[in-house]
Amino acid sequence: MEPERLTSSGALAPSAGMVGAGQLARMTHSAAVELGVELRVLAAHPGDPAVLAGAASVIGSPDDPAAMLALAAECDVVTFDHELVSPDAIAALEASGVAVRPSRAALAYAQDKLHARRELGALGFPVPRFAHATIAEDVERFGEQIGWPIIGKAITGGYDGRGVFELASADEGAEALASLPGGMLLEERLALERELAIIVARSPSGAMALYPLVQTVQRDAMCREVLYPVAGGEHLAQSARELASGISEAIGAVGVMALELFETADGLLVNELALRPHNSGHYTIEACETSQFEQHLRAVLDLPLGSTALREEAVASINVVGVEGDPRAHLAAALAVDGAHVHLYGKQPRPGRKLGHVTVCGEVPADVQASARRAAALLEGRADD
Amino acid sequence: MEPERLTSSGALAPSAGMVGAGQLARMTHSAAVELGVELRVLAAHPGDPAVLAGAASVIGSPDDPAAMLALAAECDVVTFDHELVSPDAIAALEASGVAVRPSRAALAYAQDKLHARRELGALGFPVPRFAHATIAEDVERFGEQIGWPIIGKAITGGYDGRGVFELASADEGAEALASLPGGMLLEERLALERELAIIVARSPSGAMALYPLVQTVQRDAMCREVLYPVAGGEHLAQSARELASGISEAIGAVGVMALELFETADGLLVNELALRPHNSGHYTIEACETSQFEQHLRAVLDLPLGSTALREEAVASINVVGVEGDPRAHLAAALAVDGAHVHLYGKQPRPGRKLGHVTVCGEVPADVQASARRAAALLEGRADD
Repeated sequence: MEPERLTSSGALAPSAGMVGAGQLARMTHSAAVELGVELRVLAAHPGDPAVLAGAASVIGSPDDPAAMLALAAECDVVTFDHELVSPDAIAALEASGVAVRPSRAALAYAQDKLHARRELGALGFPVPRFAHATIAEDVERFGEQIGWPIIGKAITGGYDGRGVFELASADEGAEALASLPGGMLLEERLALERELAIIVARSPSGAMALYPLVQTVQRDAMCREVLYPVAGGEHLAQSARELASGISEAIGAVGVMALELFETADGLLVNELALRPHNSGHYTIEACETSQFEQHLRAVLDLPLGSTALREEAVASINVVGVEGDPRAHLAAALAVDGAHVHLYGKQPRPGRKLGHVTVCGEVPADVQASARRAAALLEGRADD
Repeated sequence: MEPERLTSSGALAPSAGMVGAGQLARMTHSAAVELGVELRVLAAHPGDPAVLAGAASVIGSPDDPAAMLALAAECDVVTFDHELVSPDAIAALEASGVAVRPSRAALAYAQDKLHARRELGALGFPVPRFAHATIAEDVERFGEQIGWPIIGKAITGGYDGRGVFELASADEGAEALASLPGGMLLEERLALERELAIIVARSPSGAMALYPLVQTVQRDAMCREVLYPVAGGEHLAQSARELASGISEAIGAVGVMALELFETADGLLVNELALRPHNSGHYTIEACETSQFEQHLRAVLDLPLGSTALREEAVASINVVGVEGDPRAHLAAALAVDGAHVHLYGKQPRPGRKLGHVTVCGEVPADVQASARRAAALLEGRADD
């Protein structure tokens, strides 16, 4: 009989601490329950989605070193459900010997858009033309050089379209800079054909597992739809896989990493990285052998990675975003849509807030998209029964 | 915009109370989290599997009316993860106006084996030859009539082989009866070809959804393997579906019902009913569009039933049963088995205790069975890495 192995925390079951307790932590909790591994989350509020789902929690701020140490105390490894975490707090954890996965250095690629552009560009990965602006003259110079309008982005802290500005003049740039003391990332405004995304998981040992390439559809700068397959074929998917595996290895990512891509007439450009489970991977729960949430746990706990094989020919995953009212009141209507896999996050509804998603799998892209959109619209109270 | 509907508890999200907090409640909790519905469990101990997974709980005994009422207080409906519940306690709940699904009358078919044999036989469903024994002479008469050995079963409370006796003589019957004050169900000892099972879900409205027919393999009278497909074809499956839907309707089942069947040279006979998610349906998590756990919630909350369509050509679900040691210590080895979906229940290991299961899906029955058996054996500490 094989001897039992104790984990680094001395327990029989591997254990992970996750900074953040939103819907990503909630779905990671479900994967942890299935595997019988321990997950503890650092939650800002007791009403956060993962805490409502029953995850063990420490209540506190990720910027509070004491809270971070309390989270880490009983875990083999610390990981993240968002990147709005002070690099100093992560550095303190690492200095105290905690296994932080992804590391502070890798997470910086998701936290600091300017750092990501500079470093990935320097490594030879294709990125949009960009510049760093701290004063209006920087904006003017870049706009004149590449043509107006341009895009300005908060260097840190932006998400779901917050902190992104289209700038038609130096004056608009000055206005945006007024609220951004650290300056702004300027970017060319690309003629996008599509936005795409791909998820890769990487183990501490360097083992990797790549998920399929998907299309993401944004509305009001928030991801609303994730669609598979992506027309354009194997060559495009191969390019995306090479970028994802190349970047994951180059930055030493551990865990799941989502690579968001711009598709232009000239090919793929790197948009953003997320070093955690991501909205563009929710479809993996039903559509792939191993969900991104289970895979993230496997990767950060240094367990063998699971198969990423697709189980379906077509998938659509549509976000449920707050309009007014509560999607839970429309659950029966949504479940009457054939094949609708409804996921609600337990959040208090607010207009513009991601409250859930619906995934439909099948054979015909147009059919699964229509069903998923209909169920999501019903949950948003936008469609009649 | 469609008006929001409040549930009978006055909340926006439907809510269910589940009596029992074992692995069935644990997996039902995961389904509830996904749907955003509320689940509260009645747990005997704070260390029960569903409580460890984070389900809201009332700690108490199902035979304590106060505990049952506390569970029911904030729920739209009360349902069950086991049937070891006093009929009087259920009657008290029903009398106080609580929606109990399945009802006390339907649950009696799972609680009282003699009642089930008598009533289902009277309704014309095929059952083994049986008799009720309260004294040794009853055993002798039945054994002489149909030939020794015969099977004796505790009328209530038996599970996983507990309370089942093979009797070769009236003396052995007398010995068994000594510990069974309510008497014993006697049954012919059948020449079994196979044991089969099928799950049906039924709504309060009578809507039904039937899952595929599976083979169950018992060892030491405990379900160890659940296998699909079942050789023997469509005719056999059609017979099983007719029995399941017929019985479900005849007894007024609501929720998921598992029908365990004996296959003999003369056809199918009813073995036992379970009016709850069941070991023979764990495979539905990965292999069917809607898991038995989500389906049970949908049914008891009177939400539309989901598709039961199979997503795979072959499935094997193998139980992980305690030998010695803790399966969590062997998680990495099991996850290295390609396609192994590992479910661990968080229980303290004990020899003979169901601690988890592994499901593998694919195209070739022999392959998925070999993989699932190997992963389960690894978790049990019975195989080398």
